Amino acid sequence: MEYRKFNNTIIARIDKGEEILDKIKDISIKENIKLANVNALGATNDFTVGVFKTAEKKYYSNTFKGDFEIVSLTGTINTMNGEFYTHIHMSAGDADGKVFGGHLNRAIVSATCEIVIHIIEGTVDRQLDEEIGLNLFQF
Amino acid sequence: MEYRKFNNTIIARIDKGEEILDKIKDISIKENIKLANVNALGATNDFTVGVFKTAEKKYYSNTFKGDFEIVSLTGTINTMNGEFYTHIHMSAGDADGKVFGGHLNRAIVSATCEIVIHIIEGTVDRQLDEEIGLNLFQF
Amino acid sequence: MEYRKFNNTIIARIDKGEEILDKIKDISIKENIKLANVNALGATNDFTVGVFKTAEKKYYSNTFKGDFEIVSLTGTINTMNGEFYTHIHMSAGDADGKVFGGHLNRAIVSATCEIVIHIIEGTVDRQLDEEIGLNLFQF
Repeated sequence: MEYRKFNNTIIARIDKGEEILDKIKDISIKENIKLANVNALGATNDFTVGVFKTAEKKYYSNTFKGDFEIVSLTGTINTMNGEFYTHIHMSAGDADGKVFGGHLNRAIVSATCEIVIHIIEGTVDRQLDEEIGLNLFQF
Repeated sequence: MEYRKFNNTIIARIDKGEEILDKIKDISIKENIKLANVNALGATNDFTVGVFKTAEKKYYSNTFKGDFEIVSLTGTINTMNGEFYTHIHMSAGDADGKVFGGHLNRAIVSATCEIVIHIIEGTVDRQLDEEIGLNLFQF
Repeated sequence: MEYRKFNNTIIARIDKGEEILDKIKDISIKENIKLANVNALGATNDFTVGVFKTAEKKYYSNTFKGDFEIVSLTGTINTMNGEFYTHIHMSAGDADGKVFGGHLNRAIVSATCEIVIHIIEGTVDRQLDEEIGLNLFQF
């Protein structure tokens, strides 16, 4: 992975074999990012995405392997108890162009991944909402 | 729904049971937003998306219910005759990770939705294009 | 196609019959864009998206025709050997809401396409990575 910061924007290249959430964390900690909006495109050959079953307050996950193009990756970087937190959803198309996605648990880059991080000056923390069962933005 | 504004960026949390387009409208009117770019992620259990049949100049819609993760939500906020207007497309993944989407008519949040609104200083109005059958950007 | 520039953001309308990558190139060259992040929504009735088979270092493409809504279009504009380069991935939903996508080769607009280009002050060039078989960000 390599990246460069231009004012409040970071452009990163995540490389073959690297995991996307790991690298977003590495950049965020190194650059002390407290609040940001993330988008990306790229290719993955192994990714796990979840769907939150609201009645059970639990994530169920699906793992996909093969040649996939990441067609959307959208999310936020912020904090929980002042520490790094990221929440990313991703979808990717297979060899027939069929698209699969959900809440991103892990994605291994197969060729390259190009990430754009828009840093926002400010902070938003998270707190566990027990009724929902998730860590939600706390304003 | 709650949100905070940081310079030209709004970070919002839309809550369970709330409709996404309604809340985008509420924020836009309260903050007097004339032009913006929107992206979001979250979870919905009931959403309707349309496809525009160009030959008929008419939208046909599909409604999806169940546990879905919003994997992409992209759009613009601007004006038509000086009044609030928003145009959003959305896609969401089901329990198997299969993704469905189109022109967003309505989406009810099931757990949470995290929206980022990038406000742009300027205005772009819309006008009905009778040949196309849609309200298009007018420069 | 028409567009307007507001500080570091370009809002564009791509019109029926026009090809999206062509118009992104036209805007980029006219405005001398060296680095940017792109997102869009709209409608297409003819698009080709590829998937990169990493073992073969080769793109395979799928072409889709009919009424489709572009649900995600994400990418970067930068340079290779100082010249314009863009890398875009796209997905679109059909009349049943099923979503298909990948690396964007071409997409013909059927009704309208609304593009937002966030210009970043700086430059990132590309270089062919022979191991991967793609032109990657060079920092």
